[in-house]
Amino acid sequence: MNDTIRPGEAITDLPEHYDASVYFIGHIRTPFIERSQCPRQGDREAGPECRIEVDPRWQQALTGIARYSELQILYWMNFSRRDLLIQAARSREATIGTFAIRSPARPNPIASSIVKLVRVEETALIVRGLDCLDKTPLIDIKPNYDAPRAERESA
Amino acid sequence: MNDTIRPGEAITDLPEHYDASVYFIGHIRTPFIERSQCPRQGDREAGPECRIEVDPRWQQALTGIARYSELQILYWMNFSRRDLLIQAARSREATIGTFAIRSPARPNPIASSIVKLVRVEETALIVRGLDCLDKTPLIDIKPNYDAPRAERESA
Repeated sequence: MNDTIRPGEAITDLPEHYDASVYFIGHIRTPFIERSQCPRQGDREAGPECRIEVDPRWQQALTGIARYSELQILYWMNFSRRDLLIQAARSREATIGTFAIRSPARPNPIASSIVKLVRVEETALIVRGLDCLDKTPLIDIKPNYDAPRAERESA
Repeated sequence: MNDTIRPGEAITDLPEHYDASVYFIGHIRTPFIERSQCPRQGDREAGPECRIEVDPRWQQALTGIARYSELQILYWMNFSRRDLLIQAARSREATIGTFAIRSPARPNPIASSIVKLVRVEETALIVRGLDCLDKTPLIDIKPNYDAPRAERESA
């Protein structure tokens, strides 16, 4: 957990209770072991193959996924502080509101990435386009209806 | 909570505990009072104006958001069952895995929509492109970096 504040940043008191809860449904395996290795944004064409490992309980829910060429992946950025309102990103000159930047530090540290589905294995999906740390908890997989259908048989 | 199962559907036992928790950071006001009124997909051009109301605690985090023409909205679909593995959607002939459809029924009922930002008010955003029920809990607002910048001054 990173709990330092940079000049110009603002925080809030977090609410006293949560409103809903999530299950981690698997994990994402990437070649990025430290944060400094993570690209700023995933690359669906040239990025490395990453492995989305789905827990046994949920594997049946992958049925039919091979018909999609692109997927939306939601995952939990569990090393981020949640109370930042104004952020001073290293890559920007000015400070900016948390909802005007895709930083991991936000009230609900849920990331969303569109990835290219390379292939479907029995218990995992191989994809390109992720930028997260190895072993990041997975919370959802959805088809990207806007992308062209895959030219492979349904799984 | 809809707890009926249709022919061909499959469910799992849910895990005994959750792994992380979310804050509701506001609510979404739409003209859709009942589920039958919700469109199948939001329309960023012709859809009705909807109002994203951000709780006072988080309003400062909207700083700078007006520079974006499109936003990604995450919200919580709190009337959906979470244990479905195989679903029989009304609109499809065959059954399909939960991760191969954007149904609200999924282990973590988090929806993601790309919306057009129409204008920024002091405590709310007016957008087009949502398809959710009125008073749906809001969990995140992110800029869509892929869309063109807005031609208005920063808020």
